[in-house]
Amino acid sequence: MNNAIYADYNGSAPLCDDVVQYLIKRLQSGPFANPNAIHALGGKILMAMEKARGECARALGAKPHQLVFNSGSTEGISEIFFTLLLESKAQGKDLIITSGIEHSAVVNSIKFFEARGYRSRVLPTLPNGVVDVSVLPNWLKEEGGRTAMVAVMAANNETGVIQPYQGIAAICTSAAVPYFCDTTQLIGKAPFNFQESGIDYAVMSGHKVGALTGTGLLMARDPSKLKCLIIGGGQERNLRGGTQNYIGNETLAVALKYATQSLPKLDELRRARDNFEARLKAAHPKVVIFGEEAPRVASTTYLAYPGIHGQGVQIELESHNIFVTTSSACSDNEPVTSKVLKAMKVQDDVGRGAVRISLGPCSPPSQYDAIFDGLNAAFNKLSKIKSY
Amino acid sequence: MNNAIYADYNGSAPLCDDVVQYLIKRLQSGPFANPNAIHALGGKILMAMEKARGECARALGAKPHQLVFNSGSTEGISEIFFTLLLESKAQGKDLIITSGIEHSAVVNSIKFFEARGYRSRVLPTLPNGVVDVSVLPNWLKEEGGRTAMVAVMAANNETGVIQPYQGIAAICTSAAVPYFCDTTQLIGKAPFNFQESGIDYAVMSGHKVGALTGTGLLMARDPSKLKCLIIGGGQERNLRGGTQNYIGNETLAVALKYATQSLPKLDELRRARDNFEARLKAAHPKVVIFGEEAPRVASTTYLAYPGIHGQGVQIELESHNIFVTTSSACSDNEPVTSKVLKAMKVQDDVGRGAVRISLGPCSPPSQYDAIFDGLNAAFNKLSKIKSY
Repeated sequence: MNNAIYADYNGSAPLCDDVVQYLIKRLQSGPFANPNAIHALGGKILMAMEKARGECARALGAKPHQLVFNSGSTEGISEIFFTLLLESKAQGKDLIITSGIEHSAVVNSIKFFEARGYRSRVLPTLPNGVVDVSVLPNWLKEEGGRTAMVAVMAANNETGVIQPYQGIAAICTSAAVPYFCDTTQLIGKAPFNFQESGIDYAVMSGHKVGALTGTGLLMARDPSKLKCLIIGGGQERNLRGGTQNYIGNETLAVALKYATQSLPKLDELRRARDNFEARLKAAHPKVVIFGEEAPRVASTTYLAYPGIHGQGVQIELESHNIFVTTSSACSDNEPVTSKVLKAMKVQDDVGRGAVRISLGPCSPPSQYDAIFDGLNAAFNKLSKIKSY
Repeated sequence: MNNAIYADYNGSAPLCDDVVQYLIKRLQSGPFANPNAIHALGGKILMAMEKARGECARALGAKPHQLVFNSGSTEGISEIFFTLLLESKAQGKDLIITSGIEHSAVVNSIKFFEARGYRSRVLPTLPNGVVDVSVLPNWLKEEGGRTAMVAVMAANNETGVIQPYQGIAAICTSAAVPYFCDTTQLIGKAPFNFQESGIDYAVMSGHKVGALTGTGLLMARDPSKLKCLIIGGGQERNLRGGTQNYIGNETLAVALKYATQSLPKLDELRRARDNFEARLKAAHPKVVIFGEEAPRVASTTYLAYPGIHGQGVQIELESHNIFVTTSSACSDNEPVTSKVLKAMKVQDDVGRGAVRISLGPCSPPSQYDAIFDGLNAAFNKLSKIKSY
């Protein structure tokens, strides 16, 4: 589609150009073989995959042995919950401390264990979209040794608000409680260093950073503590079974290298984003920008025009070849205030208007001009015929 | 590598030409988006993915809703064990009936549950490589209602011997015991129809049939009985979370269509294989071909020259640019008789000589001439310096 503006990077990033070029060459030249085979082709593929692991580790600030290749963040999340909870209740650890703004992959994992007798306590979220961790040390103290894990994300998928994950990691470390941080929406959009973060377990999805779909990484401070969710034949040093997705894993290295190189461009994108938001509020003073006052990733704007339904805006923008969503891909078929906005105490008359605009590190900042024009036209048109 | 002969299709198939051509075009043209997004690009991708599911269903003789896209057979196996066993012991079902020739992904899944108080009973294997199911009805009767599942594969990864899976399905159905059949090595190498098979749960890996690595399908007669292993945000009708690997899933449809079209070529391949085996035995009467008398997939020969170590033969063949393995990729770093051959009562002096030659439906049958020459040279050379 000509001149289309793709503004749903938080939902899924298009394959980045470097990955497309890499893959076309890779598919034409081969080789293809099982990386665990004893013959030379297997060895060649294994070496290329381990080189990719090293490159991913460098980009993520981790050691290569701390990375487990898998199919994406959701698998990583399930494996971490499985590791930390499956047999913890019998040892007196039945509590998950989490936030009210987690992705549904985390929320549904918690529900799975709640249905099996586990408890959860949900940290409050401030109206600016930041999880309030001031109560965390007290909760950990109150619960004694009953806390099996803390699960609070690094950057929110809807608002882009960056959470105080280093602080949470420090609190968890001093209480000797494992900290799982869903870093899916931070990686590639802000600097990240796994080892310096203090996080025990983190995850990422390739399709959020321009690598092949169906790829991802689990990061573990001490991988020997992981329980294998996908059992298989001993691959990934017994941490994740199944013949490795070596082609996909190679693209993770290409995409993460590209993301690292693109980080300097984020400042320019942030300036363009901030300027876009200022112009929009000047033109439409009713517009609300969620998380505006909090630290956010450079490329996300989550906004609402009270009284105009978000889906109406999305459809209008689509008529201008601008592709956005109303909240996260997993929940945006429901025309209600998202659970993230509810946690931020946003009222329904505002929350139902939510539209998420998310670009990528290499989107041309000038795209914000076209998005401004599209939103301006949409608000001018739709404010005359109030949606609700 | 020029004139290289890839004879490790049972380990992993090279991407088939149709998939390479499809992908190169697909990567260049896009679109890329989250199939669950509400915008038009998401809808377009979702429709393409559901079209792919329909094509896979047609190729596999299943209904589209019976297929769950995942990352491959190992994930499917873990999900099926999780579904059938995680909470079955509390209901008095603590037994897994299996065979001695299962893939390590199944063997290790059973070990996981044995470590949690489950039992297994292993059906005997006949010397020809076929699992002896004559005792199965009695075992099911003896155990009353304690059998949680039966797990016997469709075709063995080492020998290529086809197992009596339809018969097992009939026995399990009449005993109302779920039957899981690992169909990874049968699909693409022999006709298969999921619905006609009577199997309750089956699995496949894309990389065994020329699709992208990290792709696969779980087949379930009644998918509503599945428990989600990778929880996520409700994708695949709540049966497998995580943003779908839509690019990979599209290649599954391309590869399965190609496999279906290639089935007629298997007869020619079988004739070439049988002729190759006959020539080899005539030239080297000591050669043993495992499972020779049993029904086998057309493209596999598993052989040994007693006293010559399999790995020696593999290395010699590699010097002729012929790539084979000694057993399965997951275990072939161990210079011992494989568990499959042990189950077939093969003695160590023969078993340690095992070499697996596995071609694909579209390998030129003339490759068997070069393989014969390579093996002939290897045996002539190595029989002078006995390995053990």
